[in-house]
Amino acid sequence: MDETDLNRYNIDWYNQVRGKSKIVIKPKTTEEVSKILSFCNEQMLAVCPQGGNTCVSGASVPVFDEIILSSDLMNKIISLDENSGVLVCQAGCILENLNNYVADKHLLLPLDLGSKGSCHIGGNISTNAGGLRLLRYGSLHGNVLGLEVVKASGEILDCLSTLKKDNTGYHLHHLFIGSEGTLGFLTKVAIQCPPQSKAVCLAFLAKNELGEILSAVEVIDTPSMDTVNEHLKLSSPIGKHEYYLLLETKGSDEGHDQQKLNKFLESVLNTNLISDGAIASEPAKYHAMWALRERLPEAFLHDGYVFNYDLTVPLEYYYKLVADVREHVGSRAHRVFGFGHLGDGNIHLQVSVKEFSKQMKQHIETFLFKKIKELNGSISAEHGVGFLKAPHLSSIKNESSFKLMKSLKALMDPNAILNPYKVLEN
Amino acid sequence: MDETDLNRYNIDWYNQVRGKSKIVIKPKTTEEVSKILSFCNEQMLAVCPQGGNTCVSGASVPVFDEIILSSDLMNKIISLDENSGVLVCQAGCILENLNNYVADKHLLLPLDLGSKGSCHIGGNISTNAGGLRLLRYGSLHGNVLGLEVVKASGEILDCLSTLKKDNTGYHLHHLFIGSEGTLGFLTKVAIQCPPQSKAVCLAFLAKNELGEILSAVEVIDTPSMDTVNEHLKLSSPIGKHEYYLLLETKGSDEGHDQQKLNKFLESVLNTNLISDGAIASEPAKYHAMWALRERLPEAFLHDGYVFNYDLTVPLEYYYKLVADVREHVGSRAHRVFGFGHLGDGNIHLQVSVKEFSKQMKQHIETFLFKKIKELNGSISAEHGVGFLKAPHLSSIKNESSFKLMKSLKALMDPNAILNPYKVLEN
Repeated sequence: MDETDLNRYNIDWYNQVRGKSKIVIKPKTTEEVSKILSFCNEQMLAVCPQGGNTCVSGASVPVFDEIILSSDLMNKIISLDENSGVLVCQAGCILENLNNYVADKHLLLPLDLGSKGSCHIGGNISTNAGGLRLLRYGSLHGNVLGLEVVKASGEILDCLSTLKKDNTGYHLHHLFIGSEGTLGFLTKVAIQCPPQSKAVCLAFLAKNELGEILSAVEVIDTPSMDTVNEHLKLSSPIGKHEYYLLLETKGSDEGHDQQKLNKFLESVLNTNLISDGAIASEPAKYHAMWALRERLPEAFLHDGYVFNYDLTVPLEYYYKLVADVREHVGSRAHRVFGFGHLGDGNIHLQVSVKEFSKQMKQHIETFLFKKIKELNGSISAEHGVGFLKAPHLSSIKNESSFKLMKSLKALMDPNAILNPYKVLEN
Repeated sequence: MDETDLNRYNIDWYNQVRGKSKIVIKPKTTEEVSKILSFCNEQMLAVCPQGGNTCVSGASVPVFDEIILSSDLMNKIISLDENSGVLVCQAGCILENLNNYVADKHLLLPLDLGSKGSCHIGGNISTNAGGLRLLRYGSLHGNVLGLEVVKASGEILDCLSTLKKDNTGYHLHHLFIGSEGTLGFLTKVAIQCPPQSKAVCLAFLAKNELGEILSAVEVIDTPSMDTVNEHLKLSSPIGKHEYYLLLETKGSDEGHDQQKLNKFLESVLNTNLISDGAIASEPAKYHAMWALRERLPEAFLHDGYVFNYDLTVPLEYYYKLVADVREHVGSRAHRVFGFGHLGDGNIHLQVSVKEFSKQMKQHIETFLFKKIKELNGSISAEHGVGFLKAPHLSSIKNESSFKLMKSLKALMDPNAILNPYKVLEN
């Protein structure tokens, strides 16, 4: 593999962490993963598990020269039960491919991300990816039914239950959801796919009243819209406003859904909370609207260096936080902007600057993390801890949780070969 | 405490396990639990954690003379965030009380059980209770946001996050969901309460077509209906049939929901799959219909000794299993009947006999468990392992999972004082 090829595996999506590994291994089967890990464990060789490498907290790239264990070639779909909606596949399947596969049976994956064209389902689960459908279908802890995992020792752990309800013994697979490859390497996945909704409506505008059909509420602010407009030439369908809300419904009867949506819009327009709006139900218009939100992370890459934070805050502070940070950094930043999953209290806050500097990073984070702690929020709503937030973990977790995390790590990976320097810094 | 009072804590709901503990301790605070466990751990005294004692697998009663640690007095509601729907309370709160409390704010608990009048939320979580709303709102792994737990050592583990999305570090609280009090004693709970639906319809009759509004599908067979009729004088609103389906919808617009339900009923009546039906939307009729299903476990208690099994099987075998067991036991049983959550593939199979005998138990279980293994099902869909199924755990779990369970138990409770003889038999 030459340097350019290796870069794809060594550098993360936001170009924030650069490893210098010379070895990428791409097993095809669980047994191959088992042999590789068993060997590495005996030889005390550090291993960095990697899926589609779309993680933005540095969990999926090596920090030094760890061996990259990639799920690139573990992309087989094993089974789909059309009655129950249970999909079983290898961990390296690309999210979008899975979604297309189950769409034929009128099912959909319970998660959807901007990076769907390259992220792996195993990586999604290892990092407990949230994304755009969480509001409706819930987190992966609710949707992943079972996992097959190879432990650091090479031992294959079979928790690949495909049952919606199985209450026999400890629910072991949850240990691996969100542990970012530090406790084991995911090889197979069983996931519950909900039925596709017959009717999808999208409105460019807030929550309540729509109840069971509401599947996503996304908020975009002016500077975010400016960034997409400037770098990707995409523009708002309703002119310039301070905030934009993107609201999606998914129901079984299009007439009912449009009635509910229209009734809702009418009532909010009457309250003057909303100044304008557009509704899309045809696919082209629908995709153009979603692109405004989905392509935001892509647009940033053109906006100098971007410090990005993935936060959960109480709803009443949701946007005030962006304003506070904007005031704090003042003219030292090019743009401070926020967008995200309003329905979950999850905001993606971005500060773009000409170029990276340690001082600026510290200036932002000292202020921001103190604020988040005061608000009882989370400094990583969905992106995980990875390498970038690992130094902060001991200060945000209480001592008892941190200690138990360390004990679990020691139990599962006594030689600490799996994804070192990430999450727990060991 | 006299013998009669003690019996309430020593004997399980289905009268299957009888402990002979002389000590019931009822702490009020986390700190008291911590002191008690710390003392017991030092003195190597075995402890049986107990909530409402409505477990039917013997997890909540002592086997010998373990000290019963009851959450009876830990019944304080700590907070309810009306915007996010997050409820924080002590582990001993009774499910129905919580449901009534949040109902004022147009919210509901994401689970509902026949035992709601006496079960504790902490016990529900420790046993990963399923129940009637799972189809719509998903399992507790998706709905429990955080827990406070006291470890066997007395150490207080604070994982009481109230955030819908918090992706910082291992998701520790999942370890305690479904581990039946063997890894820690739950003291506080944070749970996501979904908004109450404005419209509720109930039909006495199957799944598809109703999509997002379908909240429960329950099936009841003839012998089950006979039992309820005989012992509780409740009767079917549509006369005698072979199987009854109870189908509930919960949506935001009653007109829409009735339209969807009527359209569905019309289409199934046309296919001759359904011979008769009744719909209830007024509360009295609605409650009378639900009582037929909810009071089934109560009716059994009058039906001699009942061997009861809580199984998940592939949908195509859902009822065939009952017929197979009926044939297997023949005239040795008074009644063999089945009812349960069709939507989840979960059937409650019951065999009633004049009186308990070991031979009969073995006769049923040898046949039944072999069958479930062949079908790749689960011998405990929602009731857990407890004491009654602990001897079977090593045969139904694969070696790697069983080993990891043992390692986790040793890590969390090195002196094995918490709920001994349950789940892992140690």
